[in-house]
Amino acid sequence: MGYMNERNIFLKIAYDGRDFSGWQRQSNARTVCGELEEALADVCGAEITLEGCSRTDAGVDALGQTASFLLDSGIPTERIVKAVNDRVYRGRFGKCGEIEILEAREMPPDFHARFSSKGKRYIYKIRNAEKADIFLRDYCFQVDEPLDIEAMKLAAGFVVGTQDFACFQSAGGTPRESTVRTVFEVELSCSERSPEMLEIAVAGDGFLYNMVRIICGTLVEIGFGRRAPQEMEDIIASKDRGRAGRTAPPGGLYLKEVFY
Amino acid sequence: MGYMNERNIFLKIAYDGRDFSGWQRQSNARTVCGELEEALADVCGAEITLEGCSRTDAGVDALGQTASFLLDSGIPTERIVKAVNDRVYRGRFGKCGEIEILEAREMPPDFHARFSSKGKRYIYKIRNAEKADIFLRDYCFQVDEPLDIEAMKLAAGFVVGTQDFACFQSAGGTPRESTVRTVFEVELSCSERSPEMLEIAVAGDGFLYNMVRIICGTLVEIGFGRRAPQEMEDIIASKDRGRAGRTAPPGGLYLKEVFY
Repeated sequence: MGYMNERNIFLKIAYDGRDFSGWQRQSNARTVCGELEEALADVCGAEITLEGCSRTDAGVDALGQTASFLLDSGIPTERIVKAVNDRVYRGRFGKCGEIEILEAREMPPDFHARFSSKGKRYIYKIRNAEKADIFLRDYCFQVDEPLDIEAMKLAAGFVVGTQDFACFQSAGGTPRESTVRTVFEVELSCSERSPEMLEIAVAGDGFLYNMVRIICGTLVEIGFGRRAPQEMEDIIASKDRGRAGRTAPPGGLYLKEVFY
Repeated sequence: MGYMNERNIFLKIAYDGRDFSGWQRQSNARTVCGELEEALADVCGAEITLEGCSRTDAGVDALGQTASFLLDSGIPTERIVKAVNDRVYRGRFGKCGEIEILEAREMPPDFHARFSSKGKRYIYKIRNAEKADIFLRDYCFQVDEPLDIEAMKLAAGFVVGTQDFACFQSAGGTPRESTVRTVFEVELSCSERSPEMLEIAVAGDGFLYNMVRIICGTLVEIGFGRRAPQEMEDIIASKDRGRAGRTAPPGGLYLKEVFY
């Protein structure tokens, strides 16, 4: 079979990034993409190159990462989901895997998980409580000092819009032609089940390297009262990474969904 | 200073057992006791031999493990708590450690964390939901099929009392002279925050190797309806490990408290 018969398969994926060196395949490290490509190759009987939408960093989790790959095989998409999940399922009594395919769908040939995406929403989880919870240490940002949520909400408003976000870009990412992005929303809310858990939803058409984590680290410093909410405007205008706050830890970050 | 000046220090400890090869020190593996002894030695400036109450297995968690050690130094107990917690705190921005000393107290010379103990309470967490939660995979026993909680409660009643529990003992533990133990309670309850989370509290004067996990594995098989609740009585009477259920996975087990 030649190129004309290739199917374009879309995947929606959740994973716990704790024990992975991020999404992107690396020759000498355990990555989500590497693990999935191996499982898909086994299940589909062909070598697979998976194109993920977001190159999540080590320790970053996903509730709705997306990826696509070309496949020269007639295996039904439901079988791919089941077989890969069973394979990454560690097979131990009552234990599930770290990666789960939530959905698989056949797409038109021109669809690409990354290039077709119109934006993404991330959730950043902050646990604001005097005492840390050792069992949540890899799944949220533990903040012992009380946060002024209203001040953080005020500051978050300055982030929304089409702006040059150079101040929120870490060195070391893929070089970008432009540092202008559109942020659709920065919403703060407390979990109903666990009121000490603050969630920051950040949605936009694209993000610079570590951008969401730097936004959240800056919001936390504003929440401490060390900076005024209005300072957020100056930080963005400065285009200076040195003016923004620290990069919040990766464990609190979840890729929630990708828009198409 | 000689023996007469030695203080007897009691510790109450919480830990996430996920990445430890259990409590008991081993020369070639990372253990909770080993990690704590190292931290205590650093903080107290002396070699420390820690006697834990329970030798929790790899992957088993503790909310209230206890331990004691002799100390030939005047360092205040509060300083031990703070210094050790700061040391096992990984020092990363917003990240806490896997071990936490909850309390330290000076005790009379004849106190011993294990030999003075009058019993223990364990909690076993079962997540009963059709879909697994990848983020909880190491912290509970994922059970996809619906459980008949009433049948499990009925069966749990047969476990309470002073009985020969040879049927609930795995091979490989420290050899015991007697397999008779007194179980004070086996209580099932659902979490208010997360109704899908079933907690089984098991308290007793002592436990055989893997006893709580085998009791819970047996209760789950009764919850599936594969065995009648009354069968629990026969299983115990048989004194035959082969009659009881599978050993439930370690991630669901938490040492909740030690009685003195």
